[in-house]
Order: sequence, then structure tokens, then C-alpha cells
Amino acid sequence: MPRLIKRRAKKVGLPPGALVHASEKKIVKTRITLMDYDEMHFEEREIKTLGESVPFKNQPTLTWVTVEGLHQAGVLEKLGECFGLHPLVVEDILNLDERPKMEDFGDYILIVLKIPYHYNNKSNEIETGQISLVLGPSFVISLQERAGDVFRPIRDQIKNGKGRLRRSGADFLAYALVDSIVDTYFIVLEQIGESMESLEDEVVTNPVPETLQIIHDLKREMILLRKSVRPFREIVGRLERGESPLIQESTKIFLSDIYDHTIEVIDTVETFRDMLSSMLDIYLSSVSNKTNEVMKVLTIIATIFIPLALIPGIYGMNFKHMPELGWRWGYPMVWLVMIGIGTLMLIYFRKKKWL
Amino acid sequence: MPRLIKRRAKKVGLPPGALVHASEKKIVKTRITLMDYDEMHFEEREIKTLGESVPFKNQPTLTWVTVEGLHQAGVLEKLGECFGLHPLVVEDILNLDERPKMEDFGDYILIVLKIPYHYNNKSNEIETGQISLVLGPSFVISLQERAGDVFRPIRDQIKNGKGRLRRSGADFLAYALVDSIVDTYFIVLEQIGESMESLEDEVVTNPVPETLQIIHDLKREMILLRKSVRPFREIVGRLERGESPLIQESTKIFLSDIYDHTIEVIDTVETFRDMLSSMLDIYLSSVSNKTNEVMKVLTIIATIFIPLALIPGIYGMNFKHMPELGWRWGYPMVWLVMIGIGTLMLIYFRKKKWL
Amino acid sequence: MPRLIKRRAKKVGLPPGALVHASEKKIVKTRITLMDYDEMHFEEREIKTLGESVPFKNQPTLTWVTVEGLHQAGVLEKLGECFGLHPLVVEDILNLDERPKMEDFGDYILIVLKIPYHYNNKSNEIETGQISLVLGPSFVISLQERAGDVFRPIRDQIKNGKGRLRRSGADFLAYALVDSIVDTYFIVLEQIGESMESLEDEVVTNPVPETLQIIHDLKREMILLRKSVRPFREIVGRLERGESPLIQESTKIFLSDIYDHTIEVIDTVETFRDMLSSMLDIYLSSVSNKTNEVMKVLTIIATIFIPLALIPGIYGMNFKHMPELGWRWGYPMVWLVMIGIGTLMLIYFRKKKWL
Amino acid sequence: MPRLIKRRAKKVGLPPGALVHASEKKIVKTRITLMDYDEMHFEEREIKTLGESVPFKNQPTLTWVTVEGLHQAGVLEKLGECFGLHPLVVEDILNLDERPKMEDFGDYILIVLKIPYHYNNKSNEIETGQISLVLGPSFVISLQERAGDVFRPIRDQIKNGKGRLRRSGADFLAYALVDSIVDTYFIVLEQIGESMESLEDEVVTNPVPETLQIIHDLKREMILLRKSVRPFREIVGRLERGESPLIQESTKIFLSDIYDHTIEVIDTVETFRDMLSSMLDIYLSSVSNKTNEVMKVLTIIATIFIPLALIPGIYGMNFKHMPELGWRWGYPMVWLVMIGIGTLMLIYFRKKKWL
Amino acid sequence: MPRLIKRRAKKVGLPPGALVHASEKKIVKTRITLMDYDEMHFEEREIKTLGESVPFKNQPTLTWVTVEGLHQAGVLEKLGECFGLHPLVVEDILNLDERPKMEDFGDYILIVLKIPYHYNNKSNEIETGQISLVLGPSFVISLQERAGDVFRPIRDQIKNGKGRLRRSGADFLAYALVDSIVDTYFIVLEQIGESMESLEDEVVTNPVPETLQIIHDLKREMILLRKSVRPFREIVGRLERGESPLIQESTKIFLSDIYDHTIEVIDTVETFRDMLSSMLDIYLSSVSNKTNEVMKVLTIIATIFIPLALIPGIYGMNFKHMPELGWRWGYPMVWLVMIGIGTLMLIYFRKKKWL
Repeated sequence: MPRLIKRRAKKVGLPPGALVHASEKKIVKTRITLMDYDEMHFEEREIKTLGESVPFKNQPTLTWVTVEGLHQAGVLEKLGECFGLHPLVVEDILNLDERPKMEDFGDYILIVLKIPYHYNNKSNEIETGQISLVLGPSFVISLQERAGDVFRPIRDQIKNGKGRLRRSGADFLAYALVDSIVDTYFIVLEQIGESMESLEDEVVTNPVPETLQIIHDLKREMILLRKSVRPFREIVGRLERGESPLIQESTKIFLSDIYDHTIEVIDTVETFRDMLSSMLDIYLSSVSNKTNEVMKVLTIIATIFIPLALIPGIYGMNFKHMPELGWRWGYPMVWLVMIGIGTLMLIYFRKKKWL
Repeated sequence: MPRLIKRRAKKVGLPPGALVHASEKKIVKTRITLMDYDEMHFEEREIKTLGESVPFKNQPTLTWVTVEGLHQAGVLEKLGECFGLHPLVVEDILNLDERPKMEDFGDYILIVLKIPYHYNNKSNEIETGQISLVLGPSFVISLQERAGDVFRPIRDQIKNGKGRLRRSGADFLAYALVDSIVDTYFIVLEQIGESMESLEDEVVTNPVPETLQIIHDLKREMILLRKSVRPFREIVGRLERGESPLIQESTKIFLSDIYDHTIEVIDTVETFRDMLSSMLDIYLSSVSNKTNEVMKVLTIIATIFIPLALIPGIYGMNFKHMPELGWRWGYPMVWLVMIGIGTLMLIYFRKKKWL
Repeated sequence: MPRLIKRRAKKVGLPPGALVHASEKKIVKTRITLMDYDEMHFEEREIKTLGESVPFKNQPTLTWVTVEGLHQAGVLEKLGECFGLHPLVVEDILNLDERPKMEDFGDYILIVLKIPYHYNNKSNEIETGQISLVLGPSFVISLQERAGDVFRPIRDQIKNGKGRLRRSGADFLAYALVDSIVDTYFIVLEQIGESMESLEDEVVTNPVPETLQIIHDLKREMILLRKSVRPFREIVGRLERGESPLIQESTKIFLSDIYDHTIEVIDTVETFRDMLSSMLDIYLSSVSNKTNEVMKVLTIIATIFIPLALIPGIYGMNFKHMPELGWRWGYPMVWLVMIGIGTLMLIYFRKKKWL
Repeated sequence: MPRLIKRRAKKVGLPPGALVHASEKKIVKTRITLMDYDEMHFEEREIKTLGESVPFKNQPTLTWVTVEGLHQAGVLEKLGECFGLHPLVVEDILNLDERPKMEDFGDYILIVLKIPYHYNNKSNEIETGQISLVLGPSFVISLQERAGDVFRPIRDQIKNGKGRLRRSGADFLAYALVDSIVDTYFIVLEQIGESMESLEDEVVTNPVPETLQIIHDLKREMILLRKSVRPFREIVGRLERGESPLIQESTKIFLSDIYDHTIEVIDTVETFRDMLSSMLDIYLSSVSNKTNEVMKVLTIIATIFIPLALIPGIYGMNFKHMPELGWRWGYPMVWLVMIGIGTLMLIYFRKKKWL
Repeated sequence: MPRLIKRRAKKVGLPPGALVHASEKKIVKTRITLMDYDEMHFEEREIKTLGESVPFKNQPTLTWVTVEGLHQAGVLEKLGECFGLHPLVVEDILNLDERPKMEDFGDYILIVLKIPYHYNNKSNEIETGQISLVLGPSFVISLQERAGDVFRPIRDQIKNGKGRLRRSGADFLAYALVDSIVDTYFIVLEQIGESMESLEDEVVTNPVPETLQIIHDLKREMILLRKSVRPFREIVGRLERGESPLIQESTKIFLSDIYDHTIEVIDTVETFRDMLSSMLDIYLSSVSNKTNEVMKVLTIIATIFIPLALIPGIYGMNFKHMPELGWRWGYPMVWLVMIGIGTLMLIYFRKKKWL
């Protein structure tokens, strides 16, 4: 189960703005990749310290620095210094439990986003992570705790030198990164949509306790996903409407496209939540239906046989003076009476539509 | 069941703005119809490629191009080029899972809408599709994946040369198309309304599990329909208020009429959702009522006959010394006592209003 | 049951703005009444065609035309022409399923409202109709499908020549008409309030399935009523704030009074909905309570008598070697043991507070 | 039970603005108290007609007229005339079912508020009334239907000549009156809070039908209280932000204090509603729990003893050829088998955690 | 249990603005700590009366006065006088049931906040208190009723002379205090998150009445916490956007950081509420499931054994003429028939998936 709320508490008691490694998860070895390109030129290399990227940053070519693994000691210490970032920005990047947000600092823009890495359809859990982007005039820094290159396709496009990416500026690269993050939500939502469709049939026809567990798990994931994705709308909206000179007019139409996708994601999450709530109501009604069916079976059996059992009970008594016991046709008559009563009961239940 | 979320995921990893055939459904053969008219003149023909429509587009007469089937290879490739559309616009048109939206590009306006083709009142499912409209200064392009002419009546009116359509510009034609799309919602909602009315009687008087299934299906359709129709309000509102020179003042009063209809559709969908939620609550209460009734029958029978059965049990014992067994009136007294106890029980239950 | 959604579907396929008789209900014979007055002068007559009202309209005196029954063929055809109304206005008036709305056309204002004619407290249904008002510089036209003079009191006041009505302009007359429509909501809500009060006692003390039916009916009516009345707020608000020269400053304070009443109506409808939802929850809990009570009775009886029945069963066996059967006090001891066990059970149940 | 909606219906058919005594409750004898003071001077007297207050009104001293009992015939007829009030204002004051509101008429401000007189914690009902305030340049009129001086403490402070009241103007007096009305909500909410706290323990540990009744009553009162108190926020906010020259700058800080209190009241009412809804859910779950417990007892008893009863039944049969009946240890073996089966059952139930 | 609403009622009847000790809790001895520092200089001392702090206040150094225990008689009387505060400000500080708020009085800013001191995970209760801050040009006063130094870490940082605090102004100190208050919410929410995670497993697999109690307690705490924390957003937002010269531009970026944290807290509280509501629904469904299981066991046993018991009953009758009793294989046949019926029943139940 994803932890519901995380380590913010650790920071309490430290001076505001102090550097803390906010997470205690197993530390991922830091890996820094640098890509420097313009329409003509292309260079990609792995570097050891952020300091090595400074000379690239100052050239007119576009520099993209990718950092995986934020908490290896000593590696990121110069992040603020190298790129001229405010201490709070660095703190926000290192704190992995930040709310998604966008802040314009004039010289650069910080974008913090959540990304759903993986949907496990056994446990119905979504593994999410945090990706921070810093967009400067001629550089983009993308930072994530988890190892693994989520931007591989974009990297390949740049390498191949095709498409708009190679010809455009840092703002278009940032757009492409945010767009690919938004797209991962669609992948996860599609997978969840498939889980829900198989659930939908089950919930009416055969509501078992496992169904309940799955509904509960998905509902919790939707609540958490909504918390991750809702701030996107405002972030992209502000980028689109923003006055920042870092974002060119020609990029804004693409941002408006992401904006539409973002709303689509939020709408879908809300729609899924509504459907899960509805399923839970249906589930409860289905269980009540089943209990009602079980009750009917019990009642029919008890109502027919408990009264019938009285008759043999009576003629099993040992009174000396019971005239019926001596009758020639007494025993067959008892059978007749019992069959008669049973038949009448069955007719009555059929009339009540219990059978 | 309509798929809850669709193929957006496929696009991931491609350059933003790249052309992808977003759907994998069976490919519909593309059919392009061109209509070119003004008050005097009228011409209608089927064309093979979009290129054939370019000469018409540049004439002062109004040109309406209808495209059915968007994904036959090679046919729509020149859509952007022929009509000067932005690559993202073409992508939005080809992607059949776009959220309804309107975008003003200065030279032309893109409107993407969802249309409910058909309501199946057996499975309680609504089949929906996407229709894109591009409104230019003297042309309108309407594009849909599904074969079948949903705009037949409008086409006929133009052919007959009667009515305002023949005398008005491209904006009025676009209005007429959107109006006829909104009207299909009314048809579907009327059919659903009829399903719901027959459901309403059932839910209180005879709640069976099938009722639950229908409520569930309708609720899901309402959730999905709401997702389709909610953006209409904003779209039509922006068209009406918009500054675009493509829309004449005289058309705006008609747009305000669609705006009212749109709100009526949204209101009705919301009202239906409220009523279905209410029905589900009623259903649950009805089932509880029925269980309660069943329980009462069981309890009455058990409460009367289980204690009664004790008496013959006692006089069926084989003790040597049981004075009652020898009594002359023992057996009739047992009958009297049993009838007496049974009668008292019945009186008690009538008092408790269980009978 | 009121139809949930109505004939809009019929219009599909007709040119926008075309005249259609939107309803198929039995056609009411059209009856047109004309009233022409100022402070000095008063005239009232029944007329055959709208054409007869044109000369009055052009005089400085105030002309009030009432039309009952909108769908008799041929009578209303000249409505647009006589009073210079836009074709869409006429369509809105004839379409009886319009959403309440107000539109300012400069020369005249169209107001479409819903009126609740009657609350049937047997079937818990509200019969509603549509009234359209057209307010011009010196005329008011009120149109309704249903026969019957809902504005009788206002008509009488004008006839008697007392009160502000006779001295004021067309805007004050329109205000008086809207005010009397809003007041009919109070009548209906008061009647529903009485139904709800008798329901409130029932729902906790004696929840029967009929109670459920009534709650369901009222809930549906509230949902529909809310749909009718919610647009009023915006309509009256826009009239009050509006810039229209047709509405004088001195009338605006009266409009602000209607505005308060309108909010009161909406608040009350919302309050009733909340209370009905709450009642439904209470109902479900009450039924659960009752089921629990029934279960307790069953359990007490079964728990006492089923184990007891085992004892006579045992001494009814026919084993040759059962020493107890020969004991002198065997039979009375069986009685003692049974009474003892029964008493212990009762004490146990009293302890558990089931008795 | 408070009536849910009241006599507005009566007014229908009367000319707008006509004087009606809106309530039919027993008529309270009118009692008019006049207080005239400034920092130096103080005078208090009971007067018979409003006319007597006119000379005071025109003096520079501050005049406070309190009217209790609004519907004695003939006494309030001159209210509008004496103080120059608009007929609709007088109608609003006399109509006891007005929605709380504030209206600025330039010369004077009308404030209509609801006050909760008393919370009956037996029937869980809040008795509310209406108080109207008219604030003029040097006078304040407070009018209420119910007899009883709710402003006694303020009156005493003025009499004692201490505090800010004696030195301040009409606006500060009006502030003090509104403040003391808002404070009565706190008293009532505190009492309800106490009822709810005792309810909270009951609802989980011992949910009886009376608990349900109390939850239902409190929920209804909260719905009605919310309707009374919600408009306060807007009223006080508008007074605070308003441009009226009747309200001095120095008073506005006090109004902002009431504004905070008002939001506190609304928040508390909403919080109580949320808690009651939550309690109702808990109640339903608790009852289900109890039913489950009862069912378990029944099932344990029935499952142990019904099968056991079969054994003596079998050996009670009268077949000639039943070898077991002749066995020496047959009878003790029956006992052993029965005790064994019973024990196994108990072990099984303990495993299932039903015991 | 925290009291739901508190002593506001006490104030009724006192002149507005009068000093009242709003709480009746055990009075905490007042303890006043003064800290006076700038970058060079540092002084900390405990003082007896507020008067002693006045000379410090007027120096250019930054003065921070901490007051613990507000209600010891006579100590705080000069608070308003010493620091030039409005009587209503002093009242707000002393009243411990104030809603969180911020007010700008030009010379100083009052901030009233709630702080959660402690979360008791036995009783699932959060103990909250009120902290008021007064921010002046060169002084900050922090006042709280409860003894205990919640600002110890900040105090230590100042003492150590490290960090930004020693170099910055009163506004940065106020920021640091508010920040540390917001952080305590994260601590409490993290603890609650842990309680909820252990609850989540229980609710589906083993729903016991204690689970219900915990859900109920947490839900109530969330409702109350939301009431405490919701105003924070507006308070911090207004500080950030505010025009007050007391807050420097360089501090605003830190305020925007708190703003993000505040929204994170509110989001988390809302998320927890949603999850608890969802859990309650799941709980109810789980209990229904369990009841259904219990019912099935009962029904299976009763349905098999009640009919079976009829057979020995019949052959236990004492009729003279019962041919079967004399049959050689009668008794074994009875056994065969009973075993046969039992087996058929079991097959039937397995088919129905009840076993």
C-alpha cells in the first residue's frame, strides 16, 4: 500500500530553507546525463558532478541535464549554485512529497509533477514518483528519485535529429517532457479502466468479498490519483496564460493541447470515482438481494416442515385414550393431511412469487 | 459495454504533433462529399481526394465538405495542407477520443463534439461517436469516423433551396450542424426517460435483481454522457460571446438558442442522475422491506410451532410413571392447550401488526 | 407521472427556426383576451385573431393580451408578424418544453416560466405548465397552453381600478404577473410541506412500504421542481440588474422583492430535498431496526425451545435399557430441568437487553 | 414540530405591496418601548402609538424604538408614514416568514434576521422568531412578533451609562443588536453540541430506535437552522463593505468582528450536519452489526440442536426390527454421540470466531 | 472527547469589546519570555509583566515576546496598552474559541491560528490549542494558553546565531513561527495516516464493532481538523498578496512556500475524509457480507435437517395399523432415504455455490 502521507514531519525543527534528504527509502545511486544540441550539433554524455554541466549551460546551444537518484550524499550539493537556484527551489526538488506546483522565478521556472510509474493490477496499486523540471533560457533540468529513463522516446527523437524538438527551444523541450508525463496517466487510466470493466460484470451477478476489496483498493487509488493530478490543470493553465518570456508564443498552442489532455485526465479520474461509488452502492444492494434469496429458501423450508412435524409428534404421544390410533385408515390419513398441507404451502409461496 | 477510456496510450513515445491513427476499430472506407452553393447556384458531388475540394474553397460560394471514415490510409494526409490547418488540429480530428472542445485559430475555428448515435434499450447502452467541424470564412468541413449521413435533413434543406440556410454564410451552416447534434441528445434522453419511467414503478413494487442491473447500466451511461455533454456549454458559450469575425452578429441569437438547449440537456442528464441515485436508495430500502417481510413470516411460523411441538414431545416420552397418560381427557386437553397457545400467539402478532 | 423529458426530439430534421407544434397533447381551443387600459380608461374584450389587437398595441394605453391554448391550427400564425417578434421567440413560446429563461431583444423582453398548477397529494405529483410573457413598451402578452385564468386576481384588480397596477406601466404589470407565478410555488410548497410533516412521524415510528413510495414520489417531484425553479433566480436577477429601458427604476425595487421570494422558493426546495434524503436514510435505518427486532423474537423463541425439545426426544426413545424411564420421579424431574433451562435462557436474554 | 413552510400562500391574489398580517398565530398584544439618549441625557418610556415617537426621531439624540407584537390591529398602521418607510419594507417587517436580508434604501437600512429563542432538548426543537431592524441616521427601530425583551442586557448597559454604547451613534447600537442576535446562536449551538456529545457514545455502543429519532430531529433542525443563518454572512459582509453613509468607519471594525462570528456559526452548523450524517451512517452500521450478532446466536443454537434432535427421533421409531434398541450400551452411546457432535460444533464455531 | 462548541455563550450580555476570560479550564500560570536580538546582539530573559517589555519594543532590535497562560488574573491587563492594540484584538487573543483569522490593522497584524498539540492514537483524539501572533514593525508577540514551548527549535536557532533568522526582520520570524505551526499538522496527519493504514486492512477482512468506533472517531476528528485548518489557506494567501509594509518582498517567497504546505494539509485532510467515508461504506458492505455468510450456514443446516426430522417422526407414531413398522428392512430403508435426501440437498447447495 502506498503510504498515505509521508516524511514532511522530519523537517520540523530545522531552519526554514535548510537542505534535508526528505526520504528514507533506499538511496538510488545518482546518474547524471547531459545532452547538448541545436539544429546542427548534438552531444550526449554521462557526467559525474553537476559542475561539469556549467560550461554547457552558458553556450547558446540547448542543454538538457537529467538527474536520476537525488539523495546520494554530496552529488547534488552544488545544484543551487551551478544553476543559480533559490534554496527553497532546491529544497522542493529534494523533498519527494511536494504537492505538484509551478513557480516562476523570473530567470527560471520550477515545475514539480507526480508521475504514475506503474499500475499493479494484482494489488490494484499505482506506484507514483516525483519529477521536477527547471526551465531556464537555454537549459532544462529534469530530476527524479527513481532510476530509469522515462523520457527515452524524447531522447531518441532528439538523437535522430527529426521532428520539431531539434529545431525548437528549451520551452518546447519542457512541453514535450510534461506532455509525456501526462501521457503516462492515460496509460495507467486505461489499465484501470480494464480492471473496472471486468469488475462491473461481477458486481451485479456475483458479488463476492474479493469484489469489495478491489472496489475499495481502486477507490483509494482514485482518491490519491486525484490528489496528484488536480494541480496539473492550474499548472499548465498558468504556463499557457503566463507572461514569462521563457515561453514563446509558438509553444503556447501546444500547451493548450496539454491543457485539454490534463482536463481529460481529471475528468476521467472523477468519472472513475463516480463509477466506483456507484458500484459500491450496487454491491451493497446485490448482497442484500442475495441475503433476501437465502432468507426465502430458509423460510420456505421452515414454514413447510416445522408445522408438518407437529402431526407425527401428536400421534407419537403415549396417551391411553387416543381413538385415532386404533382407526383402520388413521395412518394413511396422516399422510394425506401432511401432503395436503405441504401442497397448499407451496401454492401459497408460488402466489407470493417466492418460488 | 462502451470502453471507459481509450487508446490515448498508443501515442506515447511519438513526437508531439505526429500523425497517428488513434483508433484500431475496423477501418471505415473514406467517403468524401462536397457541396458547393450560394443562393443561386448548387452543386453536390462525391470526390476521391481532398485535393479536389481546394478549387471550390477559394471561390466566394460556400463549400461544405463531409468526410466519413477518417482512417483509410492515404486519404486524409493532405487535410492540413489543403485547408491550411495546424498539425495539432489534424491530430485532434483523427484522434477519436478527444474531449469536446472549441478552438479559435483566427483563420478558422475547430469544434470537436461527441454525438450519441443510438440508444440500445436492451443493453441500456449509448453508442457515441465524434464529429469534428472546421469553420472557415467560406467553407465548413465536417469529419466523422462512422459511416452514415447524420446531417441528411440539413443536406436536403440546402438541396431544396428553401429556408435560411441557402441564404446564409458558413457560420449559419455550422450552427445548423451543431444544432442537429444537440438535438440527437434530446432523442436519446427521451428514450432513456421512457426506460426510467418503466423502471420507477418496478423499483418500489417489485425490486428484482434485473432492476438493479438496469439502474446500474443507466447510471454508468449518465456518468459517461455527462462527460460528453458538459463541455458543450462552454463551447457554445464561447462561440456566442467570442470575438471571432467568422461568426456574424445575426447568427449569435441562434447560438444563444443552442446555448439554452445545451443547458437543458445538461440539466436533464443531471436530473436523471439524481433520480437514478434516488432509485438506488429506494431499491435498497425496498429489498430491506422485503427481507423484513420474509423474516416476519419465518418468525411467526417458528414462534407458533416450535413451542407447540414441545407438548407432544413430552407426552411421547416413555416414562413409566406419567399420570397424565392415563387420564380420560388427557388427549383432548392436549389439543385444547395447543389450540389455545396458537391462538394467543396469533393475537400477539396481530397486536404487533405483523399480520 | 409527469413525463420526464418531452417532445424536443420531434423537431429534429426541420430547419432551425421553423414553426412546430411541439406538443401532441389534446389541443386546447385557443382563447384570446385583450385588456386595454390606462388610469382613466378601461376596456376588456375577447378577440378571435391576434390581428385585432394590433390597433390597440399602437395606442399609448397599456395593452395586455392573454392567450390560452397555443396549438389550435391557424390562430397563432401571425403572432410574430403582429408584434414584430423574432421567429425563434415564437418557436420558444410554442415549444412547451422550453427551459425557463429571459431574453432581452431590445424592443421587447421574452420571459418563459414554469408554473405549478396543482399538487395532487394522493399521487404526490405536481402538474406544471409553461407561461410565456412578452413585455413591450406599452404591451404585455401572456401565453399559456392550458385553459384557465391563472391571473384572475390581477385582472380583477385592474378592473376595479384600485391599486398601483392601473397607474403603472407595462413593466409593473409584467412584475405583477411574475410575482403571482412565484406565489403559486409557495402554495404548492406549503401543501408538500404538510405531506412531509405527516410523513416525518411515520418514517421513524412505523415505516411501511407506502412510506417509501411517498418519499420516492416527493423526491422525484423535488428534483423536477428544482429544475423548473432554479433558472428563476437568474431571470429575475437579470431583469433587476438589466439595462433595459423597458424596465423603470421604480419597478426595480419590486423586482428585488421577487428576487428574495425566488431565493426563498429555491432554498425551500433544496431544504425539502435534504429532508427527504435524510428521511430515506432514516427509513432504511428504521427498517433495519425492525428487522433486528423481528430477528430477536425469532432467536429468543428458537434458542429456548429448540434445545428444550431435545429432552423429551431423548426420553421418547425406545431403548430397552434406559434406567431413567423406570425412576419414580423421572417425569417430574424432566419438567424441572426444562423449566430451569428455560428460566436461565430468559435471564440470559434479559441480561443481553433483548427483552 | 416547527412548520416547514408558512403562510406566504395567503398573500396570493392581493395587490403587490398590500398590507397583510402574514401570521395567524395567536395575536400578541403590541408593546412599544422608546429610549432616547445621548452621552448626557437618557429617557425611557412606554408609548401607545408610533406617532408618539415622531418628535423624538427628529431630535439630534439617538432614538431606539422597540416593538413587540406586530399584529394587533391598528397599531402599526402608521409605521411607514411615521418613519418614511417604503410600503414593501413594512410588508417585509409584518411578514414573519421573510428570508433574512439586508436592504439599503439610502435614508435607512432594513435588516431582517432570524433569532433562535429556545432549544428544547426533550423534543430537540429550536423555536425561532424574526427580528427586523430599521437603522436611520439618528434612530433604530427593532420589531419582533414575540413578547419578551431579548435586548435586555443592551438596554441595561445604555441605562447604566457605561461603555461605548452611550457615546456612539445609531450604527453602533444596530451593531450591538445584531451582535447579541448572533450570540444567541452560539448559546443554542452549545446546547445542541451537548445533546450531540451524549448521542455520540450511544450511537456505537447502544443504538436504539430513540437514538434514530434524536438524530433525525437534530438533522432537521440543522437543515432549518442553516436556512436561517446562511444569509447572515452576506448581510454582515454587505454592511461591512457597504458605502452607506449611515455606517461610520469606526463601526466597521466591529462589523468585521460579527462577520467572523457569523462564519463561525455557519461553520459550526455545517460541522454538526456533517457529524449527524456520519452518525446516521454509523447507526446503520451498528444496527447491522447487532443483527449480525443476533443471527450468529440463532445460527449457533440451531446448527447444534437441530441435527442433534434427529438422533433421539430415530431411536423413537417403532420399527419391530431395530437391533440397536436391544443393545446393552445403546442408550449411553446415544448420549456420547450427541455430546461429541455438540462439542465438535462448538469447536468449529470458535474457529470461525463466532464465539 | 473534545468539546464540540465552547464558551462563546458566556459572553452574551456583556458590552461588546469587554474583556472576558473566555475559558473556564484550569488556569495556567502565566509565563512571559522576552527575546531581543539583531545580527550582533542577543538577549533572552523571563519577565514578570508585559510592561517590562515596552523599552525593548522601542529599540531598533527585534523583540519577540512569548506568553504562555493567558488567564492568570491581572497579568495581561496591559497587553493592549503596552503594544497599542485595539480592545477587540485583545478580546480575540483571550477568547480561546476564535476562528483562525488574520487581520491587518496598519501598525500591526493579528494572526490567530489553531495548533494540534497531540494525537492520541488510543482514543483517536487530537488535542488542539490556539496560538495568536501579533506582528509589529520590530516586534512579534506569540500568545498561547497552554504551557510548553512549541517554538523551542526556532528559539534555539536564534540563540545559536546561525541561519537566516538572526539576520532577518520581524516578518521572517513570524513566517518561521507560522511555518512551524503548519508543520505540526503534518506530524499529526502522518500519525493519523498510520492509524488509517492499519484500519484499512481490518475493514474488509475482519470488520468488528471496534473498527466502526475508530472510523467514527477519526471521521469526527477530520471534520474538526478541517474546521481548524481551512481558514489557513486564506490567511496565508492574504499575507502573501497583502500590501502591508510590515511584510518585505523577500519574505513573500517563503510565504508562498507555506501556502503550498497549507494546501497540502487541506488536501490531505479532505483525502482522509473521503477515504474514511469510503471505509464506512466498505464496512457496511462487509458486515452485510458476513450476515449473508451466517445466514447461509443457518439455511443449509435447517434445510437439511428439518425435513429429515419428519421421517423418524412419522415412524414414531403409535398407530395400530402401520405396515412399514413390521417390514424386515424398514429400519435400514429409513436410514437410506435420510442419507439420500441429505446428499441431494448438499449437491443442490454446492450447485448454488453456497458451499
